[in-house]
Amino acid sequence: MKPANDTLLRALRRQPTETTPIWLMRQAGRYLPEYNETRRRAGDFLALAHSPQLATEVTLQPVERFGLDAAILFSDILTVPDAMGLGLCFTEGEGPAFERPVRTESDVMALAAPDPHEKLGYVLDTVRSVRAALGGRVPLIGFSGSPWTLACYMVEGGGSEDFRTVKTMLYTRPDLMHRLLQVNARAVADYLNAQIAAGAQVVMLFDTWGGVLTGPAFREFSLAYTAQVVARLQREHEGDPVPSIVFVKGGGAWLEAIAACGCDAVGLDWTQDLGQARVRIGGSCALQGNLDPAALFAPEAVLRSEARRVLESFGAPRNADGTYGGHIFNLGHGISRFTRPEAVAALVDAVHEESRRLRGADAPQAGGASPA
Amino acid sequence: MKPANDTLLRALRRQPTETTPIWLMRQAGRYLPEYNETRRRAGDFLALAHSPQLATEVTLQPVERFGLDAAILFSDILTVPDAMGLGLCFTEGEGPAFERPVRTESDVMALAAPDPHEKLGYVLDTVRSVRAALGGRVPLIGFSGSPWTLACYMVEGGGSEDFRTVKTMLYTRPDLMHRLLQVNARAVADYLNAQIAAGAQVVMLFDTWGGVLTGPAFREFSLAYTAQVVARLQREHEGDPVPSIVFVKGGGAWLEAIAACGCDAVGLDWTQDLGQARVRIGGSCALQGNLDPAALFAPEAVLRSEARRVLESFGAPRNADGTYGGHIFNLGHGISRFTRPEAVAALVDAVHEESRRLRGADAPQAGGASPA
Repeated sequence: MKPANDTLLRALRRQPTETTPIWLMRQAGRYLPEYNETRRRAGDFLALAHSPQLATEVTLQPVERFGLDAAILFSDILTVPDAMGLGLCFTEGEGPAFERPVRTESDVMALAAPDPHEKLGYVLDTVRSVRAALGGRVPLIGFSGSPWTLACYMVEGGGSEDFRTVKTMLYTRPDLMHRLLQVNARAVADYLNAQIAAGAQVVMLFDTWGGVLTGPAFREFSLAYTAQVVARLQREHEGDPVPSIVFVKGGGAWLEAIAACGCDAVGLDWTQDLGQARVRIGGSCALQGNLDPAALFAPEAVLRSEARRVLESFGAPRNADGTYGGHIFNLGHGISRFTRPEAVAALVDAVHEESRRLRGADAPQAGGASPA
Repeated sequence: MKPANDTLLRALRRQPTETTPIWLMRQAGRYLPEYNETRRRAGDFLALAHSPQLATEVTLQPVERFGLDAAILFSDILTVPDAMGLGLCFTEGEGPAFERPVRTESDVMALAAPDPHEKLGYVLDTVRSVRAALGGRVPLIGFSGSPWTLACYMVEGGGSEDFRTVKTMLYTRPDLMHRLLQVNARAVADYLNAQIAAGAQVVMLFDTWGGVLTGPAFREFSLAYTAQVVARLQREHEGDPVPSIVFVKGGGAWLEAIAACGCDAVGLDWTQDLGQARVRIGGSCALQGNLDPAALFAPEAVLRSEARRVLESFGAPRNADGTYGGHIFNLGHGISRFTRPEAVAALVDAVHEESRRLRGADAPQAGGASPA
């Protein structure tokens, strides 16, 4: 069933929209006082993520407060390896870690893709509960970490500055790494399909650590498995198409290859120019991004001009051949916990106003003066 | 005076070389037991960097041990702001920090470019001492952090994950940021020219944090000031040209602009393809890079094939128009402290052997079968 506000879904399918849709990576998060209040009630992050009721509450909070065009499931990118039995935990100030990292051949051989209905039911319950709470206002985005990004955490056992352990496995035992990534690809595809069956209307793959690889290694160990996941995704649910978004942080050099992986949209970090990206992929995908999250610390006039610059860098909605480009406004990375909620409100309004205005300015041109 | 091994100097000037020269960022460092021994005697990193005798010792160590084609001055990228009076200190495990960060308008207004002869004499003494100790074997590379990268540390007061403080100044008070960067550009140019006068035969600018900016901000706040520095550099010393290298970590998207800043060579991280980079800049600069430092954790056969892949990605030494491309082999980032010295020895040999072999294989082609 189509949500009342289907701007995001149309932009993802490169259909015309009156405004550029906007949502923000990590929009349900610590910059919101109401989030911190719910988290306090939950006890900690994992308890919050495991409670469908509280996870629904925080998923809805930014949608209630701002005029965002989508909700994104509140969850963690590491739920899948946690369901594999690696023991996800969070240490204050250190980020996520696994109690039982994957280091040896027997560790890898013991891995199996978990049945999401059995092991990740709490996420699927949250998806259903969020859909009910949204009441068809805006679409719900489900997500997972990419097979490679999950592998980074699984092998390193947590965050890393140099990815020494996982890269040593990659260079020394590529066979083991491929085995691990096969399991991850199966697990992520099953997980996202279960989210779709439960009601996720869009799915996104976060390849947070794809950009730490060389080009050939990225294609072999990251993109190949992201493409496997995308190929296995349900493209439709109850008659509605379910678009997919792939975001590779630091992956600008490989944009053409990423856009060819089968996804509907590519997320870009803020080092890339959207207009150049659009030319490079020849309009084959929608593009999502790419404001510098630090622009939210700017005075409102500067924030508005930065937002406008991002919109203008993408350019006119229509391509030269009469089709549409498809731009989803977002940050180039997750929102900072130090952001003032008032800045987010100003950004959402600015993106809607400026994109509507730019479409107005563009309309006569598109009908006549364009050289194409 | 030309060093006995001038392969690096020729490659930087895009002249023919028999092998591809190789040196490694941070080649004098903690992966070498003899370095750790000298550092232990010095007491700590800063004492080591401040002692011309000990800094000379560690600068020479990798040159003595491996067949490297250059020495790089042992020093820190933050010597300049330290000389401005900000109080550089190192906290165990936290990296460099400044006791008096630059946060307010009056902090910025109080900054002045230090006279390198007065405040950085210990570095210049080290340059002279290293030149004497090298005895003309290989050229000596001097260096500094770029104006923007220095500004990041000066405003943040140390390392950062999100560069929130410096970006807030950039977006909120661009006038102050420009004032700070003007001072830095003057200071870095004076510093590098003093290094050249003392005997540095090549100079390199490290823009470690250029890649955290948007494209327009990179051009305005980073590249413009790097270009100012390059424009002010002495291009010759005692009749010999002094080439410059600019390295922007994560700057692949802006390669054309970086190559046009006036430098002789551009350093690339390992996400970029050297052959594509060469095409993009049309042979206007030499290229330095770009092995993944983690490849040094691979078995020797894999390390060799990764080194060969980097050499092959650059391609034949000669351009289509008969000029030469100019490739300097390096890592795409500083060497890891966990690297085994034996792996470095194997890498240096592999690069020399494979590049000599590829030149042999290329020679008949270049004379005949090449379509160009």
